Amino acid sequence: MNTPSHLALVPFVSVANMMRLVHHVGLEKLLVDLAAEIEADFRRWPEFDKTPRVASHSDVGVIELMPTSDGETYGFKYVNGHPKNAREGLQTVTAFGLLADVATGYPLLLSEMTLLTALRTAATSAMAARHLAPKGARVMAIIGNGAQSEFQALAFKAVLGVAEVRLYDIDPAATAKCAANLRQSGLQVVACATSQEAIEGAQIITTCTADKQYATILSDNMIGAGVHLNAIGGDCPGKTELAPGILLRSEIFVEYPPQTRIEGEIQQLAPDHPVTELWQVISGTAMGRRSAAQVTLFDGVGFAIEDFSALRYVRAAMKGTGLYDELDMVADPDDPRDLFGMLMRAR
Amino acid sequence: MNTPSHLALVPFVSVANMMRLVHHVGLEKLLVDLAAEIEADFRRWPEFDKTPRVASHSDVGVIELMPTSDGETYGFKYVNGHPKNAREGLQTVTAFGLLADVATGYPLLLSEMTLLTALRTAATSAMAARHLAPKGARVMAIIGNGAQSEFQALAFKAVLGVAEVRLYDIDPAATAKCAANLRQSGLQVVACATSQEAIEGAQIITTCTADKQYATILSDNMIGAGVHLNAIGGDCPGKTELAPGILLRSEIFVEYPPQTRIEGEIQQLAPDHPVTELWQVISGTAMGRRSAAQVTLFDGVGFAIEDFSALRYVRAAMKGTGLYDELDMVADPDDPRDLFGMLMRAR
Repeated sequence: MNTPSHLALVPFVSVANMMRLVHHVGLEKLLVDLAAEIEADFRRWPEFDKTPRVASHSDVGVIELMPTSDGETYGFKYVNGHPKNAREGLQTVTAFGLLADVATGYPLLLSEMTLLTALRTAATSAMAARHLAPKGARVMAIIGNGAQSEFQALAFKAVLGVAEVRLYDIDPAATAKCAANLRQSGLQVVACATSQEAIEGAQIITTCTADKQYATILSDNMIGAGVHLNAIGGDCPGKTELAPGILLRSEIFVEYPPQTRIEGEIQQLAPDHPVTELWQVISGTAMGRRSAAQVTLFDGVGFAIEDFSALRYVRAAMKGTGLYDELDMVADPDDPRDLFGMLMRAR
Repeated sequence: MNTPSHLALVPFVSVANMMRLVHHVGLEKLLVDLAAEIEADFRRWPEFDKTPRVASHSDVGVIELMPTSDGETYGFKYVNGHPKNAREGLQTVTAFGLLADVATGYPLLLSEMTLLTALRTAATSAMAARHLAPKGARVMAIIGNGAQSEFQALAFKAVLGVAEVRLYDIDPAATAKCAANLRQSGLQVVACATSQEAIEGAQIITTCTADKQYATILSDNMIGAGVHLNAIGGDCPGKTELAPGILLRSEIFVEYPPQTRIEGEIQQLAPDHPVTELWQVISGTAMGRRSAAQVTLFDGVGFAIEDFSALRYVRAAMKGTGLYDELDMVADPDDPRDLFGMLMRAR
């Protein structure tokens, strides 16, 4: 057996190494760094190849591929969404991703992305809120206390300075889990018995529930002036969280309209309902929040560029840490036309 | 650090293990088995989700994702095509692929596919020729003696009973490499100085050149009655190998018309030029070869279902061999809603 050349070896970040890397960097610092990385890529948005994700739907869930490229580096994520998984003791969302060199097509990095998606989703939400939430917002409600909730809380603390989170979930056990996990976070944590109670005094309301159906997590009369809504649980066709009346009163910000109109809260609205692309706010070509009384809505569904940013961040952050394995993933014969010879010499 | 549960672990077949697996099964037997597996999946073609591959083009190449699903198992392949890579000592095509469980979205297998693509491409060609080539064909010309050529030769020997291969490449070194690799194959190997010489007496002509441009590897006057053409080098927009006159005289068989019309030889023809889908020939709903004098053309570009078949074959064949590693690729907390708790307990 020949030893694989360095070109054959692709660095792989396992779940265990991703967890080590998070603690090596520090969770809150990593969320701040990730938000900055994502913001920088949103600022150069026109440089990216953009396409709606490629989805394979079944009765019980969806498997998606999310590719993008900035002309130098290519990235894609594999991700599933199976709301019924949780009842079977499985993750609703699992993911992994890859970076490759556009010039050669050779893979550069393979990484787990279940954890990384949770981190980048929270970082994106907080980054969007920095541009959209009312100034000085310190109280956030989190409706839906599942796997994403603690990451949201910590990202908003680290990126925005949120000091208090008010939790509600239809399942009190989820709220108890989230509250316990945040006990030592430095956040003031309030477990609430109703969503009404949770949003009392909150300048920011994050909805991150997981049911694959049209649901009304927030009804129109619950939302007062000046609030920023961070709606991230409506992320596939047929899955929404907000009453249409709220959408009609809000200034709506989205990642990539062709995808959000299919998957986001705005699937409830007319296909030409005006929305603002978040990258335009970040790059200064569109307005964000216009007044203290305005209701702003970030209708976040997750876009490939955020995963690209996250993978590039991991690739840079892992250097020198040893927190990766090398996978013999690319056949690399000495003579590139002699794949067969390589196979035969391995006999 | 918690030990990952079995759900977190995804079997991974490295390049080294793929080579071991090929020799464990035996190369010719593996090609025969693969052809049977692919044929079985072509027979149930309507059961599959089909979509043209998702391509990201650059000046120097393309990176593609090729997904499909039969409703129980989902598969996709990552593959690049960079013709200039060979001049830089790199593979023109590298690939890896994944199978996942449609019911849960969890990955089932990650595998190198550079070698596996070479194997499945050859197996598909030979399987198509079994339905299309003139009966008793024993002589094949191979125009283009790069990385795919030896696999073609052995697949046609193993699946079809081809006894003689006649080789031609614009680079004599490629022909010499191919001839040397086939020396102990049991095939009669004839190295030729021109393509004209190579096709003399051949009932089957395989073209597998790699330049990304419109080329005329075979001109109209070279192709006599009764020949089966296996054209697999024309596989992306702007890359073809055959003179249009040949196409107009041939009965053309393709994998998936929406993809082949973009990528195959038939991109040179009108978008409504009649073609026959190979799966219909295999399932008995369309005619293959109609007469001994007919010119048949398999315009093969490679389709996701072939990769799906190949990955499923590998998953079955590797059982009990130990020829795989287990990757800690899926975060799997005890409580699926407690991803954050898993991360924190790993500190």
